[in-house]
Amino acid sequence: MLIKLNKLIEREKIAFHKEKPDPSSLGFGKYFTDYMFVMDYEEGIGWHHPRIAPYAPLTLDPSASVFHYGQAVFEGLKAYRTEDGRVLLFRPDQNIKRLNRSCERMSMPPLDEELVLEALTQLVELEKDWVPKEKGTSLYIRPFVIATEPSLGVKASKSYTFMIVLSPVGSYYGDQMKPVRIYVEDEYVRAVNGGVGSAKTSGNYAASLQAQRKANELGYDQVLWLDAIEKKYAEEVGSMNIFFVINGEAVTPALSGSILSGVTRASAIELIRSWGIPVREEKISIDEIYSASVRGELTEVFGTGTAAVVTPVGELNIHGKTVIVGDGQIGDISKKLYETITDIQLGKVKGPFNWTVEV
Amino acid sequence: MLIKLNKLIEREKIAFHKEKPDPSSLGFGKYFTDYMFVMDYEEGIGWHHPRIAPYAPLTLDPSASVFHYGQAVFEGLKAYRTEDGRVLLFRPDQNIKRLNRSCERMSMPPLDEELVLEALTQLVELEKDWVPKEKGTSLYIRPFVIATEPSLGVKASKSYTFMIVLSPVGSYYGDQMKPVRIYVEDEYVRAVNGGVGSAKTSGNYAASLQAQRKANELGYDQVLWLDAIEKKYAEEVGSMNIFFVINGEAVTPALSGSILSGVTRASAIELIRSWGIPVREEKISIDEIYSASVRGELTEVFGTGTAAVVTPVGELNIHGKTVIVGDGQIGDISKKLYETITDIQLGKVKGPFNWTVEV
Repeated sequence: MLIKLNKLIEREKIAFHKEKPDPSSLGFGKYFTDYMFVMDYEEGIGWHHPRIAPYAPLTLDPSASVFHYGQAVFEGLKAYRTEDGRVLLFRPDQNIKRLNRSCERMSMPPLDEELVLEALTQLVELEKDWVPKEKGTSLYIRPFVIATEPSLGVKASKSYTFMIVLSPVGSYYGDQMKPVRIYVEDEYVRAVNGGVGSAKTSGNYAASLQAQRKANELGYDQVLWLDAIEKKYAEEVGSMNIFFVINGEAVTPALSGSILSGVTRASAIELIRSWGIPVREEKISIDEIYSASVRGELTEVFGTGTAAVVTPVGELNIHGKTVIVGDGQIGDISKKLYETITDIQLGKVKGPFNWTVEV
Repeated sequence: MLIKLNKLIEREKIAFHKEKPDPSSLGFGKYFTDYMFVMDYEEGIGWHHPRIAPYAPLTLDPSASVFHYGQAVFEGLKAYRTEDGRVLLFRPDQNIKRLNRSCERMSMPPLDEELVLEALTQLVELEKDWVPKEKGTSLYIRPFVIATEPSLGVKASKSYTFMIVLSPVGSYYGDQMKPVRIYVEDEYVRAVNGGVGSAKTSGNYAASLQAQRKANELGYDQVLWLDAIEKKYAEEVGSMNIFFVINGEAVTPALSGSILSGVTRASAIELIRSWGIPVREEKISIDEIYSASVRGELTEVFGTGTAAVVTPVGELNIHGKTVIVGDGQIGDISKKLYETITDIQLGKVKGPFNWTVEV
């Protein structure tokens, strides 16, 4: 179905293959495969010269715009190895669409979505041997765009580079899922309406590091961000969207403009609804969450994201008060959601929505 | 008075000198000198290997943290040529202090302030011939720090590069000062308390581009940002802080946490006060500004920043209503401030505060 871009995507040969890392020590984003995809943009020419090239350092002028004015957007998705050896992608079209929404917000030129999907597919196909098969492992795919114009004027860059790099990654959980402890952050904020919180842009991540460190120092795994205006409404967790199960209904913060529109979030909403469980997308105050927990109605909290799929939350620190969720155990919906999504990703079941694309 | 770091700062020789650009076509940040300063950071080692090296491209892994998670901070200051051929810096200590405040907010390691001042001074001294002498020109100095660790984990980078590059820049105004037209932005926002608005970090600039483009399309030169929470209080303009003169008193937004603490802003406050004119730093609602203009009490508006020193504002668009300031002419305080600061920077007068440092 894809337009074949063999003529467009040239392929330079590597001199030798890297040794593949031990699957048990993959970690996250530490190892990279032999090849990468690269494409350039110049004002007046547009996107041009799509190519698969040996993975190699970038050479940029010290005045390149990305170093000074931060025009940089990215995506993250994974290729999964099925039991019978096929390689599947999970909803890559959604990531590519979001990449273009991020580009638009950051005044960066949009990409041809079909070409990006084709590039991504060709690159993964070429690097198929790098998709690990051990439980919980996958090949992480990182498309990104950076501004490259060598100029210190504060303005949108006139040149960009789009790249896709691949990294075999380990199981997020090790041997088994473990509920995380979350600190509800009420000093620092991540984003605000009218800002760039819904774009997957580099600056949002740099801005989050100080609060993450504070949470770690206090003994928590991650931060739950509140809205910047009233510091009252739940937004998202570190690198995940967040869901609360209250009285048998799931509720997740509405996409208000300051929240990242997660692909796993959207998938979770569709799946949970397909099981007959209501899902509400709305403003949720952290005080409501606390009250629900006091009344014994808060039965599950979990995060969703590409890295960990579904992460159960066992404990919340809300303004200094500790809330233990579901006795600190993994809830039924979290567990079923994790298993269903990973079964779809690994090709064990097809699922109701046709979400996987075979490479 | 400075610790001499000659032994620390090695100097690699360039092969040949670049041709210097025509002073009338300098523009801003387009040309760079022969040398740059570079220093590396590694966790466990700290900052090391300070060196002056030929200006040359950087080589970074595609997974370098700055491309993905945006840890990047910078400064901007200028070296000025006096009539008798000396070279002066304007309050470099203030920029270096702010660089370290930016590093702290972005979870980046602090720099030794004396070493940075020494590096900056040695580099400018070596490149003295690049400081242009034409009216309004100067040598722009851009210190910056970027995160370089080749890893896709969302966390503070374990390695960084600090660099200083130099660029001869032209007159901001051409032959004479010209009042600018400002669009008061009420859709997009720049920053919010609890965020990174007071840090000079790359993401803040990327986030501002879409509003800047919108203002340009509507025929305005720059954007005046309002606070993100009530969209009511003036914050700052594009790359400048903002002052209003109302009833003979100057007023400028207080440093609330979301505003950049400008070196020219601080200098303007001190100078205006030294003339016996009161300066208030406080929350100023845009409605107050509008009312003051209707009552005929708003006599001047001007921006302050390193690039343009003092920029008079001739017109504001406040929620669609046009406010002409001081008949669109340059006000007395704006003019006196511009002349006083540039006279100090060019060494024509010493000024009351000992703000210049000779290279």
